[in-house]
Amino acid sequence: MDFSVTILGTSSAIPNSKRNPPSQLVNHNGQLFLIDCGEGTQTQLRRNHISLSKINRILISHLHADHVLGLFGLISSYALLGRTNTLHIYSDPRLKDLVEFQNVFFNNKLSYQIEFHFLEEKKDAIVFEDEKLIVKAFPLKHSVPTHGFLIKEKKRLRKIDKAKISFYQIPISKIKDIKQGSDFKTQSGKIISNKELTFDVPKERSYAYCSDTAYYKEIVRHIEGVDLLFHESTFCKEDLKRAYQTQHSTSQHAAEIAKEANVNKLLLGHFSTRYKNLDSMLFDAKKIFLNTEIAKERKCYSIEESI
Amino acid sequence: MDFSVTILGTSSAIPNSKRNPPSQLVNHNGQLFLIDCGEGTQTQLRRNHISLSKINRILISHLHADHVLGLFGLISSYALLGRTNTLHIYSDPRLKDLVEFQNVFFNNKLSYQIEFHFLEEKKDAIVFEDEKLIVKAFPLKHSVPTHGFLIKEKKRLRKIDKAKISFYQIPISKIKDIKQGSDFKTQSGKIISNKELTFDVPKERSYAYCSDTAYYKEIVRHIEGVDLLFHESTFCKEDLKRAYQTQHSTSQHAAEIAKEANVNKLLLGHFSTRYKNLDSMLFDAKKIFLNTEIAKERKCYSIEESI
Repeated sequence: MDFSVTILGTSSAIPNSKRNPPSQLVNHNGQLFLIDCGEGTQTQLRRNHISLSKINRILISHLHADHVLGLFGLISSYALLGRTNTLHIYSDPRLKDLVEFQNVFFNNKLSYQIEFHFLEEKKDAIVFEDEKLIVKAFPLKHSVPTHGFLIKEKKRLRKIDKAKISFYQIPISKIKDIKQGSDFKTQSGKIISNKELTFDVPKERSYAYCSDTAYYKEIVRHIEGVDLLFHESTFCKEDLKRAYQTQHSTSQHAAEIAKEANVNKLLLGHFSTRYKNLDSMLFDAKKIFLNTEIAKERKCYSIEESI
Repeated sequence: MDFSVTILGTSSAIPNSKRNPPSQLVNHNGQLFLIDCGEGTQTQLRRNHISLSKINRILISHLHADHVLGLFGLISSYALLGRTNTLHIYSDPRLKDLVEFQNVFFNNKLSYQIEFHFLEEKKDAIVFEDEKLIVKAFPLKHSVPTHGFLIKEKKRLRKIDKAKISFYQIPISKIKDIKQGSDFKTQSGKIISNKELTFDVPKERSYAYCSDTAYYKEIVRHIEGVDLLFHESTFCKEDLKRAYQTQHSTSQHAAEIAKEANVNKLLLGHFSTRYKNLDSMLFDAKKIFLNTEIAKERKCYSIEESI
């Protein structure tokens, strides 16, 4: 079951010739979540051969222009392409006003519904849930209301050993309980342990997105043990003062959070345009949390299954 | 004296992985005009190593999203970069409302002024003029009020032969008249022809931009004899019906206009995303007007001087 993140943009507020504004696509077994939608996102999606029409859910971390301006082109393209699926947008409530203003302004005749799901300031909440996944939003610390996102698989049912069903004459009514971990009592009263009846299944995987944010310890409890953490790293440690002033993080801040939350891997992104070379930024982070990478645009990061 | 057009985007309403939304940069001896500003224009400018800060004038043909959505990122980046020069925007008056709405929405603290110059529906007008250039807007035929633009050099003063100044003892007070084409009368009453006193100077060059528009003969009188014409070519001739319905042109329409206006060279652009290969579109146009090219993104088209 595929679980991956494709990085579409790694710049902070001002894009340059090498870095696009923030956006990334999370794919869980074909269920797509676009996280943030900076200017040019629709073009970046096409460059990555991602079908626009398959995206039904867009999570917007906060209402700074660099995280939002690609949304209006996407909404317009969807109208021109005759989209019919409802588009779900998870965001600060104010975004609805801007989307509606633009739709009237450009006389967009939408062939589909846009359904807004509002993120409440300073609150965490489950914003999406189905049988396989849960998506949570949680507050970050920035100059405007901002949320990070956790996308986490639900615990899978154990896989039953079909040979044992006939061997122990297990009735269908008991299958569900066994998949959920129960032992089985035969007609003669013998207890067959769940371990004998089932196979282990892959552990539930998780991804967390934290951008934009100052160094904020409160994040840790929301992202504890995730397989992959994307954390903003706008500045290098030498520009710590600037990071404080603008409520952004250094790469060391990101690494501290990764370490404290005991994540498996850290991806750094959202780089200030002032840095051409990111080597020292990576080096500083690795000293604190070794399994760190610089997020590369157009690269797809897979989160592998493990038992 | 450089006079060139750099193509930043050649797509029509829906960009794809190869074509960006409409925008182009006209450079006349360092005086820059950005024409239209589709999503991603600021990134395309940077990819072409064009300094954002040197652009002071933006001409917007019409208020369809694909021609406008890049403006808000540019305005935001200018604020973050601490721009101080006034930014002049030439457009439909309604654009001011959207720009102001967005500036309030995103709490953009502008370090510079934006001065709007309104284009009046169905009217042609001189919108900019200095000692070297004149820029005219003229109506096109589209589903919303739309203007084309003509950027034309003024006739240059003739270059005086300095050796003749001392030889004929020409007083300083006469120099201006001679540069403007007058003959000179010596103290003895002899008439020295202007041709003997001056050198020929390059002819005035001109560029015209016509997008978006249906086939519209009224354009011809505005762009008569231009050196380079960019004319939209959204559809190929097989999709003529679609061109009529959407008030766009085919490549044959563009070529007809180029032929009737007796221009030197035609550039085709604003291609529908449905066409991957543009060969037949070009072929159809060339049958009518031979000196036609498909506009290539990131290519700089120079308009050479000739005497």
